[in-house]
Amino acid sequence: MSSRPQTPLLDRVTAPADLKRLSDDELVRLSHELRAETISAVSETGGHLGAGLGVVELTVALHAVFDTPRDKLVWDVSHQCYPHKILTGRRDRIRTLRMKDGLSGFAKRSESPYDCFGAGHSSTSISAALGFAMARELGGVCDTGLGDAIAVIGDGSMSAGMAYEAMNNAGHLGKRLIVVLNDNEMSIAPPTGAMSAYLSRLYAEQPFHDLKAAAKGAVNLLPPPFREGAKRARDILKGLTVGGTLFEELGFSYLGPLDGHDLHQLLPVLRMVKARATGPILIHVLTRKGKGYAPAEHAADRGHARGKFDVATGEQKKAPSNAPAYTKVFARTLTQLAAEDPRICAVTAAMPDGTGLDLMAERFPSRVFDVGIAEQHGVTFSAGLAAGGMKPFCAMYSTFLQRGYDQIVHDVAIQRLPVRFAIDRAGLVGADGATHAGAFDVAFLANLPGMVVMAAADEAELVHMVATAAAHDEGPIAFRYPRGEGVGVEMPERGIPLPIGRGRMIREGSRVAILSFGTRLSEVMAACEKLEARGLSPTVADARFAKPLDRDLILRLARDHEALLTIEEGAIGGFGSHVAQLLAEEGVFDHGLKFRSMVLPDTFIDHASPADMYASAGLDVARIEEKVLVTLGIDLLSKRA
Amino acid sequence: MSSRPQTPLLDRVTAPADLKRLSDDELVRLSHELRAETISAVSETGGHLGAGLGVVELTVALHAVFDTPRDKLVWDVSHQCYPHKILTGRRDRIRTLRMKDGLSGFAKRSESPYDCFGAGHSSTSISAALGFAMARELGGVCDTGLGDAIAVIGDGSMSAGMAYEAMNNAGHLGKRLIVVLNDNEMSIAPPTGAMSAYLSRLYAEQPFHDLKAAAKGAVNLLPPPFREGAKRARDILKGLTVGGTLFEELGFSYLGPLDGHDLHQLLPVLRMVKARATGPILIHVLTRKGKGYAPAEHAADRGHARGKFDVATGEQKKAPSNAPAYTKVFARTLTQLAAEDPRICAVTAAMPDGTGLDLMAERFPSRVFDVGIAEQHGVTFSAGLAAGGMKPFCAMYSTFLQRGYDQIVHDVAIQRLPVRFAIDRAGLVGADGATHAGAFDVAFLANLPGMVVMAAADEAELVHMVATAAAHDEGPIAFRYPRGEGVGVEMPERGIPLPIGRGRMIREGSRVAILSFGTRLSEVMAACEKLEARGLSPTVADARFAKPLDRDLILRLARDHEALLTIEEGAIGGFGSHVAQLLAEEGVFDHGLKFRSMVLPDTFIDHASPADMYASAGLDVARIEEKVLVTLGIDLLSKRA
Repeated sequence: MSSRPQTPLLDRVTAPADLKRLSDDELVRLSHELRAETISAVSETGGHLGAGLGVVELTVALHAVFDTPRDKLVWDVSHQCYPHKILTGRRDRIRTLRMKDGLSGFAKRSESPYDCFGAGHSSTSISAALGFAMARELGGVCDTGLGDAIAVIGDGSMSAGMAYEAMNNAGHLGKRLIVVLNDNEMSIAPPTGAMSAYLSRLYAEQPFHDLKAAAKGAVNLLPPPFREGAKRARDILKGLTVGGTLFEELGFSYLGPLDGHDLHQLLPVLRMVKARATGPILIHVLTRKGKGYAPAEHAADRGHARGKFDVATGEQKKAPSNAPAYTKVFARTLTQLAAEDPRICAVTAAMPDGTGLDLMAERFPSRVFDVGIAEQHGVTFSAGLAAGGMKPFCAMYSTFLQRGYDQIVHDVAIQRLPVRFAIDRAGLVGADGATHAGAFDVAFLANLPGMVVMAAADEAELVHMVATAAAHDEGPIAFRYPRGEGVGVEMPERGIPLPIGRGRMIREGSRVAILSFGTRLSEVMAACEKLEARGLSPTVADARFAKPLDRDLILRLARDHEALLTIEEGAIGGFGSHVAQLLAEEGVFDHGLKFRSMVLPDTFIDHASPADMYASAGLDVARIEEKVLVTLGIDLLSKRA
Repeated sequence: MSSRPQTPLLDRVTAPADLKRLSDDELVRLSHELRAETISAVSETGGHLGAGLGVVELTVALHAVFDTPRDKLVWDVSHQCYPHKILTGRRDRIRTLRMKDGLSGFAKRSESPYDCFGAGHSSTSISAALGFAMARELGGVCDTGLGDAIAVIGDGSMSAGMAYEAMNNAGHLGKRLIVVLNDNEMSIAPPTGAMSAYLSRLYAEQPFHDLKAAAKGAVNLLPPPFREGAKRARDILKGLTVGGTLFEELGFSYLGPLDGHDLHQLLPVLRMVKARATGPILIHVLTRKGKGYAPAEHAADRGHARGKFDVATGEQKKAPSNAPAYTKVFARTLTQLAAEDPRICAVTAAMPDGTGLDLMAERFPSRVFDVGIAEQHGVTFSAGLAAGGMKPFCAMYSTFLQRGYDQIVHDVAIQRLPVRFAIDRAGLVGADGATHAGAFDVAFLANLPGMVVMAAADEAELVHMVATAAAHDEGPIAFRYPRGEGVGVEMPERGIPLPIGRGRMIREGSRVAILSFGTRLSEVMAACEKLEARGLSPTVADARFAKPLDRDLILRLARDHEALLTIEEGAIGGFGSHVAQLLAEEGVFDHGLKFRSMVLPDTFIDHASPADMYASAGLDVARIEEKVLVTLGIDLLSKRA
């Protein structure tokens, strides 16, 4: 552990109200201490580092000027909220970040009244803040009161249509609402899209260190009776320039760009906005992700996510967690196939690293599309590519794919277009918690007519499934795989397309059959070893497909065994439900079958290690063994079945 | 039937290629004939009238200038595509619109190579067209070839984030792509939001009949070698003015506004764009919904959707189909509750009429929010309202709610915020077909932890469910109800909140129990009458809740009967799956139960009458009766069980 930083000012802050007793210069010093404390904490816990470091001054300024928690501070994505957590009474637990029973790595309503709206996914903050603002206008009642509503949103998050929808609505409603655009030209990956280019032009045309054009916009946001006081406002706003036509066309007053690391710019502008603003205002703040910590500033990802590290050197104590093996297996296999088939292309929604598509983009840059944080568009764009004769792989995390659900139904499935969905982070994901746990994809995909749904049992299976998807031109096909590393099986040189709708037998046994869908297979096998010690020899099969089901395999397993268990890393309504429906329709239940379906429990599971999460979920080796025994009516305490 | 219009020019058109042989003046006359034919056809079939009439000239101009189907013409929503269908070889079937086995009311790939991308939902066209454009750039292979990609999108559809995401991506990619913004200041309802106001300002500042400022923008879209020819372009573009900074900031060249009913403006501009354009271009065209047919032009909805009507008077032969009884029951009940509880508010995504919320808005305008076509924002905005202490009812059609799925998971369910989802058009919807069939909502909602999911068996039940939702402050709750009229039961004066997770017995019988979820209950009762004639007396219960399930009721039905059937108007993975999971976990299947779950079949069902659709789906009275008999092993031909 590194020695803790000296933080005399921060030590006196137990709540944001304490900031109001500090001078502006003291707030500057406090920012330095807060930055050091953030670096120190994340060096012990790992987590999202760069984003928090970029908003240290902004966090201090917002809490110093506004009255949280009465004023509602909504952090977009909220992986930048560690400094906010330190200032809002959670410093004593900041070194439990992302651990079981520790602080969440995101804003979380159940954790603190200062986290008025949780997140994890991007681009929701303006909508949520507008909800608070309109609740205030309508006299809504809230434990902490209802004051100002402030969304802090990154430039990358602005590529999402949802942010535009919210701005469009806010501009129409015209009520007081504050949006802080935290422009660091870097979300997780470098941002893409015309909006990003536009923001760069705003800065290029009028950088904040050019003091000559001041305050025109600021005057506009004053209510008419105050306009006479405009000269004073101009004085306050020295250093502030005006632009942002695009935002103004959407009904927002635009202020900026400001230097987001200069409290002597941030504080007076925020104070004036608080004192005088009427309608929706966008404050454009330029920051640097990873600011103030050289190892982060100099990293390609600006220190986006880090394992535990040494503060002095920035050296990570283990490999970064955002390059998991399944992701790489997918990316390598796809790149190999793309070398052979010029029709293969790929679409990512702002996650080139996370999905591994950066690997493919190195070799085939024109065939990899990063559409920005824009899953709705990404899915239908893929559908258009497929209609144009390409073979698009639409690679998205399970929970982010939820953003494109209607497009999957309406543009892909109904039209039977051969879009290939590569679904990463399927199942429980560990430290990112419930917002990132891919629990629902099997249920929401497998009920779509014509969709093929696969899950890889291990990394070799994933290779075959990528090949299967590439070869499948008849309609849409999806394959899911988890976060993290594979199980270490031998890898095939190349993928062989699997027969659609066929599972495989793993081991032949008796009395009980376990039909696994996805990577729980290795836990099933481990459970079987323990069951062998009790004299039981389960049959195990890997379903490979949730849709279409391997009817013959399933009916055979049911016929030949006293009990049939399914297991999957997904919520109810998915694989097990489809198997149950088949068994029911075939009359298998009429005469009795001990059928059980192991699925994720009906709760959102808090962040913890993946192993802890699967234990909580009841899908680990011990619980599989127990389920088999209980189903067969065997006393858990008996040594032999 | 009205007498058919005289259409000598149209009679000579069998494919769009024929338009190229007509002079511009002949194309004007052809437009008149096409309009008359459209009116005549829809007077016989009913359907979407106003939108098609608004784009008659635009349709003629696009087909006359571009080379469809090689050039990809993507109609947004596509309810405006009747004139397109008439021109593209389907005139002989145009009077079968929206009927079983007839033409779809939307663009549909399986219907014609000229329908290169189908729709039904809004705002997908730019994404799809960009997909075609990039497929062209990458050498994609398509049966009809790959030429220009042209999206035609309404101003209302521009409020959707998806359209913005696509523009943002198209502006970044910079390839040739044509977007025609069909600005009629009216989607289904009058449009809302800042974008709409912006478009109005564009026109107000530079109406198309102001000829003085010409062609500056047009010059910009020429590739550099052509810029010398700019004077000629200026001549062509007389009558065309330039503006649209917002679109230009997003990387598009902007042309407009044009008079969308003046072919002498449309044709030369489209020809020049076709000849010279390089990057993405937005052509802003002003049209009038319902244009050229007085009864539509003068209607509040501009003739959006019509039943069969008399051409001479515009009088509809039966009541318009967009004010169904369930919708009104919901709206009346909610308005009544809103009168008593100032915290009740409501959110619609551009469907104030369709959801009935216009009724509530008449009395409580400040508490009804029309957010535009913006379901993602609408859901999270509702979550913000709930976090601010309001009681928001988020009223959306089942299939449109798919647009907000991630927001339901991430912002509502994970945070347990008490958003009330009023889900209209749940189940099969008739003439609008598969894109509007609410098949998936039970499955995608009931697997979310903490969500309460109800379905109304009849209109009186709906009244109670609205009251239940209003009273439920503990977390999110959803209730679904179908398109169309109720069954005529006696209506309660006011709703009484139901106990959460409790069903109700409808009739006590023996041998077989039918557990119904939703409005199939009346068909179940009718089937029971027929079964009585065979000596069978089924037990019937109304589950009311798919989540939480009424465990006691379900286990009692299972225990006391030889067979248990569930029935719902939804796809697999929903109610029946949850019941099956419960029965499996409780060991009910271990010793045998004839369990069957009647769900929508695993196909997208084409448009037809609702009765025909339910027959196709196997959920009508005859099929329920048959299912009971087959499950019990009774010969269908025997008279008595």
